Amino acid sequence: MGKGRLEAFSDGVIAIIITIMVLELKVPHGADLAALLPLTPVLLSYVLSFIYVGIYWNNHHHLLHTVKQVSGATLWANLHLLFWLSLIPFVTGWMGENHWQPLPVALYGGVLLMCAIAYTLLTLSLLKTHGRDSLLAQALGRDRKGKASLAIYVCALPLAFVHVWLAIALYMVVALIWLVPDRRIESRLQDESH
Amino acid sequence: MGKGRLEAFSDGVIAIIITIMVLELKVPHGADLAALLPLTPVLLSYVLSFIYVGIYWNNHHHLLHTVKQVSGATLWANLHLLFWLSLIPFVTGWMGENHWQPLPVALYGGVLLMCAIAYTLLTLSLLKTHGRDSLLAQALGRDRKGKASLAIYVCALPLAFVHVWLAIALYMVVALIWLVPDRRIESRLQDESH
Amino acid sequence: MGKGRLEAFSDGVIAIIITIMVLELKVPHGADLAALLPLTPVLLSYVLSFIYVGIYWNNHHHLLHTVKQVSGATLWANLHLLFWLSLIPFVTGWMGENHWQPLPVALYGGVLLMCAIAYTLLTLSLLKTHGRDSLLAQALGRDRKGKASLAIYVCALPLAFVHVWLAIALYMVVALIWLVPDRRIESRLQDESH
Amino acid sequence: MGKGRLEAFSDGVIAIIITIMVLELKVPHGADLAALLPLTPVLLSYVLSFIYVGIYWNNHHHLLHTVKQVSGATLWANLHLLFWLSLIPFVTGWMGENHWQPLPVALYGGVLLMCAIAYTLLTLSLLKTHGRDSLLAQALGRDRKGKASLAIYVCALPLAFVHVWLAIALYMVVALIWLVPDRRIESRLQDESH
Repeated sequence: MGKGRLEAFSDGVIAIIITIMVLELKVPHGADLAALLPLTPVLLSYVLSFIYVGIYWNNHHHLLHTVKQVSGATLWANLHLLFWLSLIPFVTGWMGENHWQPLPVALYGGVLLMCAIAYTLLTLSLLKTHGRDSLLAQALGRDRKGKASLAIYVCALPLAFVHVWLAIALYMVVALIWLVPDRRIESRLQDESH
Repeated sequence: MGKGRLEAFSDGVIAIIITIMVLELKVPHGADLAALLPLTPVLLSYVLSFIYVGIYWNNHHHLLHTVKQVSGATLWANLHLLFWLSLIPFVTGWMGENHWQPLPVALYGGVLLMCAIAYTLLTLSLLKTHGRDSLLAQALGRDRKGKASLAIYVCALPLAFVHVWLAIALYMVVALIWLVPDRRIESRLQDESH
Repeated sequence: MGKGRLEAFSDGVIAIIITIMVLELKVPHGADLAALLPLTPVLLSYVLSFIYVGIYWNNHHHLLHTVKQVSGATLWANLHLLFWLSLIPFVTGWMGENHWQPLPVALYGGVLLMCAIAYTLLTLSLLKTHGRDSLLAQALGRDRKGKASLAIYVCALPLAFVHVWLAIALYMVVALIWLVPDRRIESRLQDESH
Repeated sequence: MGKGRLEAFSDGVIAIIITIMVLELKVPHGADLAALLPLTPVLLSYVLSFIYVGIYWNNHHHLLHTVKQVSGATLWANLHLLFWLSLIPFVTGWMGENHWQPLPVALYGGVLLMCAIAYTLLTLSLLKTHGRDSLLAQALGRDRKGKASLAIYVCALPLAFVHVWLAIALYMVVALIWLVPDRRIESRLQDESH
């Protein structure tokens, strides 16, 4: 099975997810600053989610770059990831419209946690097809970033009920960890081409 | 006629269908569990439809993988399938918002039945171009899964008015039948490459 | 300039246009037939527009198949076509929700007319790059279908104010003319490959 | 890193942006001209933004045509551009629904300014990977169009509060500057192929 259509379909779904989030920015009726300001938390939530979905697209791009075959299990692991990503617009909207109250912030983190778990499952499904000695396996190494993200999300969820900003700060930490594209894969590829 | 644009266009439409369903999950006004819980049937309907559309994308992917030429009739058979798939978000929303009442559940099954018929017509249109001895024809074999699905849908429709859960259970049975990607085609391809 | 991205972008826009039309089918609040029936005109309008947009995608597919280079003017002629196509969901919704009253039906035809003009301009822009002796020019021939469509639309617009069904019948005639994909191009290609 | 998925993802996002703007054209309830006319400013804003997004797609197309490698920084510069482009539907809707009042018109220009800055950053990021002697660098030359656009936007923003039509006229001037696709790159490519 070729990976072309898997990439194309994922690109399509992720492009729609990243764009429909902006539909939560409802056009206000007034034409002055007073009408615009209440949108600030919705806009900030949008920025955070845009970065998150952008990170997933970037990592997905890097991950599949090293991949040669795609099994039936991988197709479903990929759809499972897309499912959780598709819930991001909903939790982003809920968190933004309620000005970061505890439950929406925790649910936002819960969906991010499920996305991270789904991404890990996708990685494992690819490793199963490609073997421990593959370029992919070497590039991923011990996947410290992935494990750290999962741990941080698990900590952030209960902290949302202590103080929402603790949770949001931790979400931002995870974003920062990943903002740099996966240099492990990039450098491996560089080595390969020399 | 190449199949590249047919695949790209279908991927685009299916990606949009699978993603706009999530727009039915309207952001609630409250920020507590009481505001979130009424969304449960909408969410569950979304999960079921996401799996269904995912199955169609997977099978479409496998089906076209073996295909070489695309005739004008195939282009329209494909658009016909996309038409019925495009109604899934509507019936999903109707079923979810009405907490699985008989008529919405039956209509949901009716649209699934039409999707299955449209998929069968697409298969037949491809078989016509490729002939009985083609890789495609061998891979599809007697298409027992397809025939079973049609039969189950026809049974499920009236059962929705007896008890909705009978119908929904049958819809899930069809999903389970297809959840495994079409091993017939996959194994044929494997044989081919040896 | 390659035509790959032009096709990909057009596929994306047309896929979105054909799919967002279904968002006009608003999920009704009741769960019985009485709640569903008022949607019939919206659904029928959707079917007609789905066929129309499908025809444009099919013809666009065939048209670009024979094309080798894409000039800057062609990029804009293509965007111009996409602009008018993007208004189809709006006029479809207006026509459907008002149960085919004269002005919405005439405006629907007006947008279809502009789409047909834009498609003709795209064809002319491609002919300019490819020359009178090109495969494209031979395949298009005298473009009788295109000219007939323009003439029928011009007749249908005023007829919408005499009786809406006269206009709608003429729209269906145009759809039927085009429903068969452009055999001129298909047969030329066949000849070519022999 | 290949540029294929970057192009595909950008095409997807830009296709969605250019199409969801039309959703702001809400179907009116009446079926006469009186119901349609209030939509005129929304439609005109849509036309202007359609042209703008079309220009960005065209230039993006031309820009990446000359590109060979895509670095991690370029992926993020591209996402940054897509972020600002994704705000165009919102500011278009706000400007249109408020019939071009000063603040919405200024904010519209502000988002256009950020898009222009993001496009410049994307260009710089590509130049960094490709070097001063590359085809890309030669094709861009001194980027007078880009610099002029930035200067015009900076002038237009305060002028929106003096008289909105001054600002809108300047926005149109920028559109006209770019409406012609980047002949610098096109002619360089032509030279190259000779």
